[in-house]
Amino acid sequence: MSGLKRPIRMGMVGGGRDAFIGEVHRMAARLDGSMQLVAGAFSSTPEKSIESGRDLGLDAARCYGSWEEMLSGEQALPIDARIEVIVIVTPNHVHFPVAIAAIEAGFNVVCDKPMVLSNEEADTLVAVQQKSGAVFAVTYNYTGYPMVRQARAIVSSGGLGVIRKVMVEYLQGWLATPLESTGQKQADWRTDPARAGAGAMGDIGSHAENIVSFVTGLDVTAINAEINTHVAGRRIDDDATVLLRLSTGASGVLSASQVCPGSRNGLRLRVWGETGGLDWKQESPNELLETSLSGPDIVHRTADAGLGKESQAATRLPAGHPEGFIEAFANVYRGAAEAILAGRDDGEDFGYPDVRDGARGVKFINAVIANAGRGWVTYE
Amino acid sequence: MSGLKRPIRMGMVGGGRDAFIGEVHRMAARLDGSMQLVAGAFSSTPEKSIESGRDLGLDAARCYGSWEEMLSGEQALPIDARIEVIVIVTPNHVHFPVAIAAIEAGFNVVCDKPMVLSNEEADTLVAVQQKSGAVFAVTYNYTGYPMVRQARAIVSSGGLGVIRKVMVEYLQGWLATPLESTGQKQADWRTDPARAGAGAMGDIGSHAENIVSFVTGLDVTAINAEINTHVAGRRIDDDATVLLRLSTGASGVLSASQVCPGSRNGLRLRVWGETGGLDWKQESPNELLETSLSGPDIVHRTADAGLGKESQAATRLPAGHPEGFIEAFANVYRGAAEAILAGRDDGEDFGYPDVRDGARGVKFINAVIANAGRGWVTYE
Amino acid sequence: MSGLKRPIRMGMVGGGRDAFIGEVHRMAARLDGSMQLVAGAFSSTPEKSIESGRDLGLDAARCYGSWEEMLSGEQALPIDARIEVIVIVTPNHVHFPVAIAAIEAGFNVVCDKPMVLSNEEADTLVAVQQKSGAVFAVTYNYTGYPMVRQARAIVSSGGLGVIRKVMVEYLQGWLATPLESTGQKQADWRTDPARAGAGAMGDIGSHAENIVSFVTGLDVTAINAEINTHVAGRRIDDDATVLLRLSTGASGVLSASQVCPGSRNGLRLRVWGETGGLDWKQESPNELLETSLSGPDIVHRTADAGLGKESQAATRLPAGHPEGFIEAFANVYRGAAEAILAGRDDGEDFGYPDVRDGARGVKFINAVIANAGRGWVTYE
Amino acid sequence: MSGLKRPIRMGMVGGGRDAFIGEVHRMAARLDGSMQLVAGAFSSTPEKSIESGRDLGLDAARCYGSWEEMLSGEQALPIDARIEVIVIVTPNHVHFPVAIAAIEAGFNVVCDKPMVLSNEEADTLVAVQQKSGAVFAVTYNYTGYPMVRQARAIVSSGGLGVIRKVMVEYLQGWLATPLESTGQKQADWRTDPARAGAGAMGDIGSHAENIVSFVTGLDVTAINAEINTHVAGRRIDDDATVLLRLSTGASGVLSASQVCPGSRNGLRLRVWGETGGLDWKQESPNELLETSLSGPDIVHRTADAGLGKESQAATRLPAGHPEGFIEAFANVYRGAAEAILAGRDDGEDFGYPDVRDGARGVKFINAVIANAGRGWVTYE
Repeated sequence: MSGLKRPIRMGMVGGGRDAFIGEVHRMAARLDGSMQLVAGAFSSTPEKSIESGRDLGLDAARCYGSWEEMLSGEQALPIDARIEVIVIVTPNHVHFPVAIAAIEAGFNVVCDKPMVLSNEEADTLVAVQQKSGAVFAVTYNYTGYPMVRQARAIVSSGGLGVIRKVMVEYLQGWLATPLESTGQKQADWRTDPARAGAGAMGDIGSHAENIVSFVTGLDVTAINAEINTHVAGRRIDDDATVLLRLSTGASGVLSASQVCPGSRNGLRLRVWGETGGLDWKQESPNELLETSLSGPDIVHRTADAGLGKESQAATRLPAGHPEGFIEAFANVYRGAAEAILAGRDDGEDFGYPDVRDGARGVKFINAVIANAGRGWVTYE
Repeated sequence: MSGLKRPIRMGMVGGGRDAFIGEVHRMAARLDGSMQLVAGAFSSTPEKSIESGRDLGLDAARCYGSWEEMLSGEQALPIDARIEVIVIVTPNHVHFPVAIAAIEAGFNVVCDKPMVLSNEEADTLVAVQQKSGAVFAVTYNYTGYPMVRQARAIVSSGGLGVIRKVMVEYLQGWLATPLESTGQKQADWRTDPARAGAGAMGDIGSHAENIVSFVTGLDVTAINAEINTHVAGRRIDDDATVLLRLSTGASGVLSASQVCPGSRNGLRLRVWGETGGLDWKQESPNELLETSLSGPDIVHRTADAGLGKESQAATRLPAGHPEGFIEAFANVYRGAAEAILAGRDDGEDFGYPDVRDGARGVKFINAVIANAGRGWVTYE
Repeated sequence: MSGLKRPIRMGMVGGGRDAFIGEVHRMAARLDGSMQLVAGAFSSTPEKSIESGRDLGLDAARCYGSWEEMLSGEQALPIDARIEVIVIVTPNHVHFPVAIAAIEAGFNVVCDKPMVLSNEEADTLVAVQQKSGAVFAVTYNYTGYPMVRQARAIVSSGGLGVIRKVMVEYLQGWLATPLESTGQKQADWRTDPARAGAGAMGDIGSHAENIVSFVTGLDVTAINAEINTHVAGRRIDDDATVLLRLSTGASGVLSASQVCPGSRNGLRLRVWGETGGLDWKQESPNELLETSLSGPDIVHRTADAGLGKESQAATRLPAGHPEGFIEAFANVYRGAAEAILAGRDDGEDFGYPDVRDGARGVKFINAVIANAGRGWVTYE
Repeated sequence: MSGLKRPIRMGMVGGGRDAFIGEVHRMAARLDGSMQLVAGAFSSTPEKSIESGRDLGLDAARCYGSWEEMLSGEQALPIDARIEVIVIVTPNHVHFPVAIAAIEAGFNVVCDKPMVLSNEEADTLVAVQQKSGAVFAVTYNYTGYPMVRQARAIVSSGGLGVIRKVMVEYLQGWLATPLESTGQKQADWRTDPARAGAGAMGDIGSHAENIVSFVTGLDVTAINAEINTHVAGRRIDDDATVLLRLSTGASGVLSASQVCPGSRNGLRLRVWGETGGLDWKQESPNELLETSLSGPDIVHRTADAGLGKESQAATRLPAGHPEGFIEAFANVYRGAAEAILAGRDDGEDFGYPDVRDGARGVKFINAVIANAGRGWVTYE
């Protein structure tokens, strides 16, 4: 993995004290020095935003009381001092206005998923971004794992034959109790329909949809969805299963749940084609099982010689040195940073999920929520 | 595990040279000496039947040319010499006539699954068996594993709280190619609708249904099924996914496929309740993972002190001495043999799946096949 | 796996009620019908012996009060009725006199390990057996696992290059407390120097030595041993580590312990050569990991197509159907039975450990016990 | 995990282009922003040093041609601009002079392992450091894993009873071929006795010794060592096994090898006491298996509720989000940075291995090399 010429200057919206995902983004940016935090509007409460910025060692002048102030404040700075990218790590309903404004103010964007709430927002954002040419990355971070990239390379090279079947699951247990009633911050907004949009489906189902698309390159053509709310009193789905029909006629099953006690962050993807299969699990991310018609099984491990260039480029350490969640996240950041340096929005080339991936994810979530319980519906 | 007083005398229908499952039944019977093969109609070709019997060291006089001959031949023997149980290991479409005739001739029955083809056959068989009081065991052999019995004990004792979610999968790859076109005997009849009834759903989906029922004790109240035939030219389903609604409102997903290259005999059951979960995999059958709301995970292993009496009773060896597929199968045989010795048909008490389990399995398969693609349908 | 022409008639010495290993031998014999128990001297207490025989359904006339009576009683029977093989499953110190007498009375022998106590006994037994031509099998049962046989085939075919390093461990925890003081039968005799000879080293270390020899074909040329007794008051070793020097200059480490809480029956063998390695674990016996200089890793699974004929011949079921401890044990029994039918003592050909393996094991144990703490000593 | 007040200014010696471990240190420093690279003498070739510094975005004035220049150059800067810590990532033989000079020039030190080559150097360095009070961290990075810290907490709380047995292994395969003859940079210096001191024993055996000490708190009291050179023409050991006697009478086995094809970075520690055991593997670092006398097994996973404060403090993410090698390494950096901020050298308190750990490691390596093949020798 080669170094970047220089870190990109970034400003963050959201991610103040107590937030979880903001610090993950910052670690991902720092690990390779791909981006450097220089400004932020970390909270909708100005004092909190400023305190958070001070914790992070920022210049007080660049700790803004609102994202609108950050946009105007930074635009007032000389071009080679001002931020180049805005990272959006707020609750989901805030993504859209910030993203639109950021692009229109001439900034690149890194946005957490799901990208926006409605299909209309998604379409608008795609249109605005396409016109601008801004780099726009959506942090479907699991695409950053070396073995996920290897899986994609195996499929696209025809290593499994035509794909017939996909099983993806993303299981958690942290919402098996009515945690939102305790005031826990994460549970609070993530189970609020107004701020989260969707529940398990939006929060983790969107990752599941994305990894299927990333690895197989196939489109969903029809869905047959059920969503459930297993915890009494909860206002949002906490469990979902979606049968998929994919281009090439492959069948798929997508399961997302947050009420499976003991499941921590259980994202797993299995893909089978005519002649072979792949199995990858996020909790042991440095292994990729490849199977065939008659055995033996093959276990690829991160950084092994003989892996494809896509996975090698996403690897920092020799084999046997576990690369984890932050490293994968950092690979998405590197890709975005390289694209910004190159002045060219091309997620495919630079290895980050882009605005189109984000829009597809939003539409998938909404299709599931809208059609749950209605049997098969043609998708799109 | 205590010994049986004496082996039950058994006669077999099917299971001649080249058959797979017949020899499995014989090993299961021999392992504990729970049943002793003394007669057979091993093939619909009389010469083959007699040759197969000779291979097995049987008295030539008890190697019959047809199952009808076996019934009459054995009935002509003194009561303490004649067979006590008839084991049916033919292709599926033959199960029904043999089972009915066997019961009516006063014999007990061990029958492979799926028990029969149609719901009508199932109902008739239940009625005939109930009237007779004959012991009738259906070899849903996976219920014989000690850790499956432990799983059941944990659920029924309330160890997981109310059950919310079930995921069961049974994945194989041996039919990923059009194997039936090569004349392979197993593939030939198992992909023939007339002899097999259903494909993946009947062959292995029925095991998946059974293990859910066995472990959770819940009934299926609605299904939303899809079935697929992924291999061109195949005349039967080779892949299926069924969304389940279970009593108590639990949701479930059942996946059965025979076109997953590299999946050998991948039966896995996961169950989650309000406060915990279980995970069991047939290919490493001596482990049972139990999870909870906040960790750590617990791994039960066959024969560990502290396991319940149900699993201990199904165990022959100290911990760390793997018990496998045949041992589990033999547990079903032991249960049936003990019931025959006791003259009492009670699968619950003696630990074998009985005619009601068999009938439920048949109806599940038929419901899936009949309703595939139609969205949710109330079951029963 | 093809069937045997007929079962061998066997008589058992030891293995009465409460014994563990006797029933294992009987299950191993029954599973394939390779041997049939028809006589026994199951206990040194005549009444117990007779009761045990009755439990097993034996003819009362062939439940003998002592092994001497069994020998003479069986010799008095017609040649086609009398037992053909004597199975010795007594405490270790009884093996020698029974084995010698059995051979001299014209019987074949299956003997548990360690074969005898002293090197002199071992030499004598080898000489007596060689002169007689009797089939003599020692139940180093772990050699019966299909994947152990596959491992041997890979090594002997040069698949790893010249062997450089071996690590073998056999760890248990059942003697981590002074169990013998509770009167537990197994612990009682296995920790008594007079009856057991050696402790952990004799009981399980001998299996570890045997599997190294079986898989690698190498001889031990020097040892550097330590033995320990970790439980206060115990009269025998319960823990040992032996550094090995092997022919070809390979280095090895053998660890055997019975005081590792949580280790159940943890036999594991790892072998590395110039270009690859193997890793096999008894508790998940149907997997064999094969590694290479630059990856990926390869996982062989029992019954996969492409495995060698040695492992295929030791396999009863399709891939994914776990074969366990009894099945492996039964493979040794089958080999011995086939050799008896053929009238030819050739463990190599028929797949059972023979008297020479037994003698080598005895000498290894004794060398370790005699030289523990003395640094490197040339072996033999 | 709470943030640091500010990053420590660091200068690096070694770690230029092509070096492996230098970049690991930099990532570890960057991940949490615990230290910031502001100066360096990255290579013994001045031009290379300067180029390397430029790659890293350093001020050209602080890219020094030698470490001596860096010391004097930095001393000339104002106290609040100059570096506070010197990170030594050169080949092993250079550690000593740099470390001594750095301390004497008033800097804190982070030094790679093994700390120095000879026992005399170790003693001298301890004395110099103790006098100075400088913070001195040795990057035994595996102590940074949360589950290693949890293991230590379990042992020290008496969770296993008195420790009886330790097995530690560190197996790699990258030197299974004569890689040094190809000019590969890492293999070149690591197999050169003058620059590396020792081979497998020094490079990875020292980590194995350290983790035993860290987790168990026990001292080695005697060793019985063998070292081997398996690759023809190699000038240094590439394989070693050491029997250990530990305080409390525990026995141990330490294996270190670099000639095990397919072993990538296989550090594994197992510890057993009277009532329980622990098993941790570096390649799946977020699991810790805890075993007991009678089962079941318990699997602790990083970030689970209920883990001790030591492991929680070393954790950045919720359970199920893998933390890897760099995260563990960064924990050592954080500890050192916190100690520097506090102006207090206390590895125990701040969670980093200190100069005493480094010295103990050096002496262990040297004892093994000096006494290999000589049987048991009392240690120290």
